[in-house]
Amino acid sequence: MPAPARSTYSQADLAKADSYKARDYPEDVDPAIERLVRDMMSGFADKWTVVILDTLWDGGTLRFSELARQVTGISQKMLTQTLKRMERDGLVIRELHASVPPKVEYSLSPLGLTLGAAFCNVWVWALENHKAVETAREQFDGDRD
Amino acid sequence: MPAPARSTYSQADLAKADSYKARDYPEDVDPAIERLVRDMMSGFADKWTVVILDTLWDGGTLRFSELARQVTGISQKMLTQTLKRMERDGLVIRELHASVPPKVEYSLSPLGLTLGAAFCNVWVWALENHKAVETAREQFDGDRD
Repeated sequence: MPAPARSTYSQADLAKADSYKARDYPEDVDPAIERLVRDMMSGFADKWTVVILDTLWDGGTLRFSELARQVTGISQKMLTQTLKRMERDGLVIRELHASVPPKVEYSLSPLGLTLGAAFCNVWVWALENHKAVETAREQFDGDRD
Repeated sequence: MPAPARSTYSQADLAKADSYKARDYPEDVDPAIERLVRDMMSGFADKWTVVILDTLWDGGTLRFSELARQVTGISQKMLTQTLKRMERDGLVIRELHASVPPKVEYSLSPLGLTLGAAFCNVWVWALENHKAVETAREQFDGDRD
């Protein structure tokens, strides 16, 4: 990731932003690849995907019913759809055990594990900045009253 | 972020995942704060938010029409809504210049800059793993034929 284009940030702002970076995005990426990456990001930057990644990271191997309970607010239909998309993308492993009744378990694949780790900084960001966001919201709503 | 719960990953898998991490998520976070952070993540893990963060990172200060052109595929209505939400959350600064006609410009706030940086690893992940995802999709679709 090159330096941001706006030049009015303070050194402290830039240093704080830098503290959330680990890997640098290369500068010389083919525009065709850039479009592909952006399309792909649109799919992964999805609230349920991110919460399921986190839940499977913490939970290890979980049955559908356990996921449904731990991913608060998701409907069964949305959970089914999101898990199928994540399985198709190679992020989630679905294991069918031939018991009676049959048992289906979900876990992160090694690829899903790396995506979960890549989101780590965003979770840290949310933890460290949720108060700043709430303050901004109150100020914005107050200005409109 | 503590170690993942599933114990069957190889050392190489764990090392690769670790390469996408920079900051560690603390282990002793209050469950009430955890719920707040998860709710907040649901808002930021949104495809348009992520693409607008990236576009403003690269573009610096942009007019609405420039954003609309650069954020491929977004509708005017969705762009307006997403920018207003990001402004309310304190991520985006909206500047109204009293020219004729009036000019409105958008840029990342220092807070938005830090969130953009936090997403950096996810962009790097998408760049490095888009082929693996495509291969997984082809295999998944092939298995179902």
